[in-house]
Amino acid sequence: MRPSGRDLGELRTISIETGVMSHAEGSCLIRMGHTHVLCTASIEEKPPSFLKGTGQGWVTAEYGMLPRATHTRNRREAAAGKQSGRTQEIQRLIGRSLRAGVDRLALGERQIVVDCDVMQADGGTRCAAITGGWVALRLAVNKLITARLVTSDPIMEHVAAVSCGLYAGQPVLDLDYAEDSAAGTDGNFVLTGGGKLVEVQMSAEGAAFSRDEMGRLLDLAEAGMQGLVAAQKAAIA
Amino acid sequence: MRPSGRDLGELRTISIETGVMSHAEGSCLIRMGHTHVLCTASIEEKPPSFLKGTGQGWVTAEYGMLPRATHTRNRREAAAGKQSGRTQEIQRLIGRSLRAGVDRLALGERQIVVDCDVMQADGGTRCAAITGGWVALRLAVNKLITARLVTSDPIMEHVAAVSCGLYAGQPVLDLDYAEDSAAGTDGNFVLTGGGKLVEVQMSAEGAAFSRDEMGRLLDLAEAGMQGLVAAQKAAIA
Amino acid sequence: MRPSGRDLGELRTISIETGVMSHAEGSCLIRMGHTHVLCTASIEEKPPSFLKGTGQGWVTAEYGMLPRATHTRNRREAAAGKQSGRTQEIQRLIGRSLRAGVDRLALGERQIVVDCDVMQADGGTRCAAITGGWVALRLAVNKLITARLVTSDPIMEHVAAVSCGLYAGQPVLDLDYAEDSAAGTDGNFVLTGGGKLVEVQMSAEGAAFSRDEMGRLLDLAEAGMQGLVAAQKAAIA
Amino acid sequence: MRPSGRDLGELRTISIETGVMSHAEGSCLIRMGHTHVLCTASIEEKPPSFLKGTGQGWVTAEYGMLPRATHTRNRREAAAGKQSGRTQEIQRLIGRSLRAGVDRLALGERQIVVDCDVMQADGGTRCAAITGGWVALRLAVNKLITARLVTSDPIMEHVAAVSCGLYAGQPVLDLDYAEDSAAGTDGNFVLTGGGKLVEVQMSAEGAAFSRDEMGRLLDLAEAGMQGLVAAQKAAIA
Amino acid sequence: MRPSGRDLGELRTISIETGVMSHAEGSCLIRMGHTHVLCTASIEEKPPSFLKGTGQGWVTAEYGMLPRATHTRNRREAAAGKQSGRTQEIQRLIGRSLRAGVDRLALGERQIVVDCDVMQADGGTRCAAITGGWVALRLAVNKLITARLVTSDPIMEHVAAVSCGLYAGQPVLDLDYAEDSAAGTDGNFVLTGGGKLVEVQMSAEGAAFSRDEMGRLLDLAEAGMQGLVAAQKAAIA
Amino acid sequence: MRPSGRDLGELRTISIETGVMSHAEGSCLIRMGHTHVLCTASIEEKPPSFLKGTGQGWVTAEYGMLPRATHTRNRREAAAGKQSGRTQEIQRLIGRSLRAGVDRLALGERQIVVDCDVMQADGGTRCAAITGGWVALRLAVNKLITARLVTSDPIMEHVAAVSCGLYAGQPVLDLDYAEDSAAGTDGNFVLTGGGKLVEVQMSAEGAAFSRDEMGRLLDLAEAGMQGLVAAQKAAIA
Repeated sequence: MRPSGRDLGELRTISIETGVMSHAEGSCLIRMGHTHVLCTASIEEKPPSFLKGTGQGWVTAEYGMLPRATHTRNRREAAAGKQSGRTQEIQRLIGRSLRAGVDRLALGERQIVVDCDVMQADGGTRCAAITGGWVALRLAVNKLITARLVTSDPIMEHVAAVSCGLYAGQPVLDLDYAEDSAAGTDGNFVLTGGGKLVEVQMSAEGAAFSRDEMGRLLDLAEAGMQGLVAAQKAAIA
Repeated sequence: MRPSGRDLGELRTISIETGVMSHAEGSCLIRMGHTHVLCTASIEEKPPSFLKGTGQGWVTAEYGMLPRATHTRNRREAAAGKQSGRTQEIQRLIGRSLRAGVDRLALGERQIVVDCDVMQADGGTRCAAITGGWVALRLAVNKLITARLVTSDPIMEHVAAVSCGLYAGQPVLDLDYAEDSAAGTDGNFVLTGGGKLVEVQMSAEGAAFSRDEMGRLLDLAEAGMQGLVAAQKAAIA
Repeated sequence: MRPSGRDLGELRTISIETGVMSHAEGSCLIRMGHTHVLCTASIEEKPPSFLKGTGQGWVTAEYGMLPRATHTRNRREAAAGKQSGRTQEIQRLIGRSLRAGVDRLALGERQIVVDCDVMQADGGTRCAAITGGWVALRLAVNKLITARLVTSDPIMEHVAAVSCGLYAGQPVLDLDYAEDSAAGTDGNFVLTGGGKLVEVQMSAEGAAFSRDEMGRLLDLAEAGMQGLVAAQKAAIA
Repeated sequence: MRPSGRDLGELRTISIETGVMSHAEGSCLIRMGHTHVLCTASIEEKPPSFLKGTGQGWVTAEYGMLPRATHTRNRREAAAGKQSGRTQEIQRLIGRSLRAGVDRLALGERQIVVDCDVMQADGGTRCAAITGGWVALRLAVNKLITARLVTSDPIMEHVAAVSCGLYAGQPVLDLDYAEDSAAGTDGNFVLTGGGKLVEVQMSAEGAAFSRDEMGRLLDLAEAGMQGLVAAQKAAIA
Repeated sequence: MRPSGRDLGELRTISIETGVMSHAEGSCLIRMGHTHVLCTASIEEKPPSFLKGTGQGWVTAEYGMLPRATHTRNRREAAAGKQSGRTQEIQRLIGRSLRAGVDRLALGERQIVVDCDVMQADGGTRCAAITGGWVALRLAVNKLITARLVTSDPIMEHVAAVSCGLYAGQPVLDLDYAEDSAAGTDGNFVLTGGGKLVEVQMSAEGAAFSRDEMGRLLDLAEAGMQGLVAAQKAAIA
Repeated sequence: MRPSGRDLGELRTISIETGVMSHAEGSCLIRMGHTHVLCTASIEEKPPSFLKGTGQGWVTAEYGMLPRATHTRNRREAAAGKQSGRTQEIQRLIGRSLRAGVDRLALGERQIVVDCDVMQADGGTRCAAITGGWVALRLAVNKLITARLVTSDPIMEHVAAVSCGLYAGQPVLDLDYAEDSAAGTDGNFVLTGGGKLVEVQMSAEGAAFSRDEMGRLLDLAEAGMQGLVAAQKAAIA
């Protein structure tokens, strides 16, 4: 019944290839089916100015998309002279999500910038960016640990994300573009490895949704987290 | 236990004064306690270009804040030369929320722009903007009906919003600034008059939250909707 | 003969309501008939960089207009990405006018930012902004005096403004929009409480004007100042 | 008593050299002492969109300054990415002033853009721009007449401008930079060849000024117009 | 003697992988050693407005670099709000170079946009972008031919580019970053498959260079073209 | 055969008038036929931040064009809000070229900004800017020497530039606009007084060019340098 032939609660094939960017402290290319996002984590020893003297660090994110990541070419944001509202909203979400899994005191007064650049888009790019961004962050923090620049691990737990939605009246996991553009209600769910919630963003694209429907999407998201965390673990092993 | 002395599930005093802007087709000043938002709805007979020839209309929103709506003065966005990511995120949310209650075919090929300008901020400005924006929209659409520019009512149902959060370990309704800045988890809930959900945006400011905690916040939001819709009804009566 | 039925030398009904913005050090809502401007004064303990070490302070102003302050909606300047030439010209005028009544040495090395936001426009918004801006400034400076942060009063005199113009061949005081858009010549006059001139800006919208006509407009402005200063005095009493 | 040794009511040496830009329909280099402004008038057969179908034309102006027109280098506005408030205010003044001398119906549906670029600044650049801009405009309109593109002369009268101010307590005509930066009150006066006023912009740089002082500055400006108009006449002869 | 151990006239290992972007009409990932550039060609059936009605088409290029393509993170141009002068210079060069190999009449009234995004930078990114951009363009044009949208092949010949420079006093081919940052004189040479020159850009980073030195760099470039064109041919075979 | 009647290897009439800008440390107006560029050099005692503490200085350039320097009016870049790619490319070229003739250690920790503003354009503006910019730079550096702010002359040699191209199949020197717009291949050649090359930028506007053709253009440029350097020497004598 799904365009891809997947079961309702089936994730797309996940692949997380690490070390793809030779200069970055941490990097990976995450593929959720045909959605491919390149994630890098860059350590900057200078924290943002509002944290100077607090002993705390920061994790922030930026999001971009290659002009031809999509069916038709999108205007390059650098040429347009500004980031769209959508881009800013997404990068704020990625940043908040990743910070939720980090002990900023343990990180110390430095900043890690996670860049998520969509190479190919087939729905769910912000979720893939969070799941892959966490891997890049983990790898970068590993370098801090190895170099003894931190004394305890600033990463407290896995953070990953997945979208769910009502497609043709059924709750489905990990929407691709065909489903996303036809979905009634959909949501992005960011969870920890321990199954707790970090961010929930649900939106009625058409008709409003019931609390029961929301619960069924959440069920799917929770179940789907197993696969995402397993893929993260395999990648950083 | 709450700084304001309110009960856990108690809304702030709501007041919605209509007709406050003499030029706008619809307008109101909504006060949720010390949060005051001026909402106007402007009818433009020309739809956005992507809807030309579709027979459908559009509702969009813009959000702003006076520089001294807050404790310390914020830089004016017009002087800064761009709207912040936060502003864009909020106005996109308001627009989506209001559209969820509108039959865009019944509206016809025109656009209604809802401007929400925060006069004074004490937490929950985006929710107040949605609740008040709906009233401004309702009043503007009434003019279309009176002028027989639409043949059936394009507004399908009430849309209103409220924030809830975990404050000092307890779920509380309609957070003010003191609570918001100290809250662990909080969320914005946009609902219809019929009690269905339009948008859910929850965020773990500190620790991740459980599904059970999410449910308790949702309970509060659903209960709080009664008061919001009642205030909307009184305002447009 | 005037659209409003006023006498040639009659001001519109003035109302200056103070303390309307709870966070600002000084604030008022000034209403000159249907022109309503919200003015706030914000004290910043840091002076602009060009005054560092001089012992002098600064007063500056910013001007804005709500999108639907006017008959048809204006594009929000924050969304347009810049302030118009008109906006910049007006806020420079307000700043210069208010500084003319201030002893900047007595103010000390701090800055007061006066924000003037037009809620509703019916002609004469820049003049109302100056008259109301002075009240907001006065109230903010009172706080400095009460807190003994200044040792002598930095405000030397009242500053207020009014427009005059030739309407249907007659000199009239305090033009509203209907008059303003039809006026041949008009001008904005900024005066001190003592009746001296601070700024004069006259412009021949159509035919050039004679020195005699200029004199008659100035007569009206001088006479009108009485009412403006009286309203300021009543407001700050 | 004046730094330049001029009499109180003496203009600087004026020179207006025409035809300095080979491509422009009209051009001149005006020198008011050490203030040099290059003025060109460019005819565009397309009127601004707001005049389409009205039968009326438009005259507009733009103002710029070479980075090293001044004692120390100013940042290039093109590099800064925007025109300053001062620039916009000045070019709006030039445009309004020149339009005051033009019959826009006789001009027909076309636009003339007058560019005023300051080569060297020694005070009074906006006044020189108006006086020289009128010459460029006159020459461009002559081409329209010669080419029989207009049937009656759209230029109704001379327009020129001069600054006056109180320097060391005395009213002086045509301030240079040394005087301008020390002047108490100063003003820019735009007049027609017939001696009527087009724009008056007076500003109390320090103490407020009396009506009598204003009158004495106006006297000087009126007297000074003779020399400016004579120079314009000589230039276009 | 070269940091990489290469001979003076030896190219880096070239790899051109095609079809890497599923949505683009033509795409490839070109690797010149550690410099990796992703190139896509997007066909737009609408030509730029200046070509409407001429029967001719256009080829243009845009260039970007991922923030962490380099040793330390570069600011994202979309976040900075503009493309740097370097970026604009490079994308203008790529566009001119590719157009030199295209018969724009045979292409017909359409536009092909070639996006070159640097994934990893180790010197020579603009040259790699031209060599790879040509492959993407070739593949996109093949689609036009297959779809019979063009009647004769608009691509007249191969276009490729390589840098040469004086490193440690010796002329070397295809500089990597270590050589580039130490080179005295270097240049970028764009040639056709037939060995003719399309663009030559030489720059004395330190001491000026002689015509003889220039000739020796040109010799290297001509020889190096064999390898580049062979790699292009292999890629599109 | 050339539109101007010049011989193939004949420069346009050159005139370099110095001291044209009274405020600048160095200035000249260079005229290459009908191309006129005003060049000023401004000394800033503060070096760019990336050179602080290195003992080295910097020379940079900015380029602009008056709106009516050309046949039809160009939009003012300050009004457009950004410098075009062409402008940035040209000013980067001017800066690199001038730096090639400067000993930056001898200059010491200061910056010289060379502004090149095109008054009238008839082809070859960037070359005229380099040739004239060098004169302005030379004059400014002379002031440093006179004031004993430098101990040895930071200017090592003359730098000048000229364009050459294939016009109607023949190599011609110093193209004017009529030739430039019709030329097949053209190039800009920056040379030192000693005849060495600083920058070579050649571009096939239509057909690709051979190495032999390139050599013939270079021959012309080398010969033409005599005249340019002679004019520079005469100007600074």
